[in-house]
Amino acid sequence: MELVGVTKATADYKVDEAHEKGIRVFSVGNCKRFEDAGYSVEGSLNELLQDCNAVVDCSPKHIGKENMAVYSNYPGLRAIFQGGEKHELTGFSFNSDCNYGPAAGKRWIRVVSCNTTALCRVISTLNASFKVRKVRATIVRRSADQAESEKSVLNAWVPDVGHGFPSHHASDVRTVMPGINITSLAGEAPMTLMHGHMLFIEAGNNSENGGTITAETVAEALQQNPRILLCSLQKGLTSTAKLKDLFSLNGRNGNLYEVCVWKESIGVDSDGEIGMHVAIDQQADVVPENIDAIRAVFSTMPAEESIALTNASLGIGKMLKNIAYLRK
Amino acid sequence: MELVGVTKATADYKVDEAHEKGIRVFSVGNCKRFEDAGYSVEGSLNELLQDCNAVVDCSPKHIGKENMAVYSNYPGLRAIFQGGEKHELTGFSFNSDCNYGPAAGKRWIRVVSCNTTALCRVISTLNASFKVRKVRATIVRRSADQAESEKSVLNAWVPDVGHGFPSHHASDVRTVMPGINITSLAGEAPMTLMHGHMLFIEAGNNSENGGTITAETVAEALQQNPRILLCSLQKGLTSTAKLKDLFSLNGRNGNLYEVCVWKESIGVDSDGEIGMHVAIDQQADVVPENIDAIRAVFSTMPAEESIALTNASLGIGKMLKNIAYLRK
Repeated sequence: MELVGVTKATADYKVDEAHEKGIRVFSVGNCKRFEDAGYSVEGSLNELLQDCNAVVDCSPKHIGKENMAVYSNYPGLRAIFQGGEKHELTGFSFNSDCNYGPAAGKRWIRVVSCNTTALCRVISTLNASFKVRKVRATIVRRSADQAESEKSVLNAWVPDVGHGFPSHHASDVRTVMPGINITSLAGEAPMTLMHGHMLFIEAGNNSENGGTITAETVAEALQQNPRILLCSLQKGLTSTAKLKDLFSLNGRNGNLYEVCVWKESIGVDSDGEIGMHVAIDQQADVVPENIDAIRAVFSTMPAEESIALTNASLGIGKMLKNIAYLRK
Repeated sequence: MELVGVTKATADYKVDEAHEKGIRVFSVGNCKRFEDAGYSVEGSLNELLQDCNAVVDCSPKHIGKENMAVYSNYPGLRAIFQGGEKHELTGFSFNSDCNYGPAAGKRWIRVVSCNTTALCRVISTLNASFKVRKVRATIVRRSADQAESEKSVLNAWVPDVGHGFPSHHASDVRTVMPGINITSLAGEAPMTLMHGHMLFIEAGNNSENGGTITAETVAEALQQNPRILLCSLQKGLTSTAKLKDLFSLNGRNGNLYEVCVWKESIGVDSDGEIGMHVAIDQQADVVPENIDAIRAVFSTMPAEESIALTNASLGIGKMLKNIAYLRK
């Protein structure tokens, strides 16, 4: 794959950041305001699209819909939209672990949001060992991304109440895994570093493998997926801030492409129901899915091969896995 | 009831606060450090206890256990401990709605914590209309009380992982309601204003009343309890901060003795399972329980009478209920 260029709507420090990395920047709309601000851009969005086979559309939510009309003018151009758009925009919602194959040949697909991606990863991984009967998911959302100093919630809990119960996450998971029974609740906390999930997973033993549900077998099942990182309290990783610190200082630029599950939080209650705490890096966990999504729509290679290649490129499943998780 | 006095362990502004209200202050330990700091105290804890029939022990957790040895020297003196102590200290954990009667004659009882009190109130109220089969509770805890400027969590989610799954709240609810099936997960968010609960409540219709579970019947059931306040998003009460603001400026000194349930968050999923968002004022919701607990151990009056009297004294179920909840 070759990165042809990126677009910017605002003339700010992120243009410098791209240029510093040798990435060509194109303007959304008129180039003049970039020139007025002292930035040189390579041209407009239309000039960029002429040279592209695929677009990863990372625009703010609902703008993807407008952009699709533009992309439609370029025969053969395909686009990957993000979770801020509705499922109905593309009619196909994607997760590497769940439906890579059926994405083949699609012109438009949507990678689900960071929280839904995390839920799909954990649930599909557990469903392979234990048949999942019902999931109750709660989501403690960061109220703003790291750079959004103009936004945020101060010193309060803001429940997602406006759209009623369940929160949209439950139906969003079902756009990828239609057979899963899931219900959800969510809210925003005054923080920027990662989302937290608290999950209750009702499951039955899988008769094919005769599995028994214990904290140990659940941890073993989760470890089969390189995009799930078991982190340990015994390593001092007591909060999302510690996780971000570890991944900021060790070659990852702060990106946790993996979904993090606290090993010591995994347990089974007296009904055999599984519980656990999960941490999700909002800007990072969908990055591997977007890379796989490009290969999926063009049928470049099978799912296992793409996932392994993406993991190798991003360093998923390497050194930091051993740092974060205390092995026996 | 007559307040004989309060104790203080530290010579700080809270002594002035008590004196300003005409409340007598006694020293825990040596009186000298109060005198050195320019405060006058009435005497020591032992001098206070000589004049008391009952103590409400609000000392930091685990100190209650030490104090019980002191209280034991005063025949007939009874004590109400708080949720920071273990159930085993008193062998009896109390909630006004659940077990007022059986508290009669007990020398030592424990009022469960703010979060457990809230869970007991909501669950017992719903259990009266719908038979509760299982509760999955998640708790987004404030990381420090309002005055604890030396404490708190900064910009991170801190899951309660150390004690595994379920969190202690599930077993704590069962110290009051032994028959309830409940599991729980909890963590701390960077905020001081109230705790948030996200609840999934599996229930069957109660055959005796032929009830049907809908958002409306759940809201109606909750409204039967004056200590549960339905608050409305339509009133602009979008966060715990807005709730605290409303109760700070209208004769309540910021105290929400009620457990607050967001009306619009109440819903029923496709399995008929109930979901809702709840807000709990950490320092206030156990105050009515402590007052009732004193009457309960001395058998001063029946539960309904005590609850009504406490509610009237504290203004529970009055004006603010109409402000917070949008009626049809």
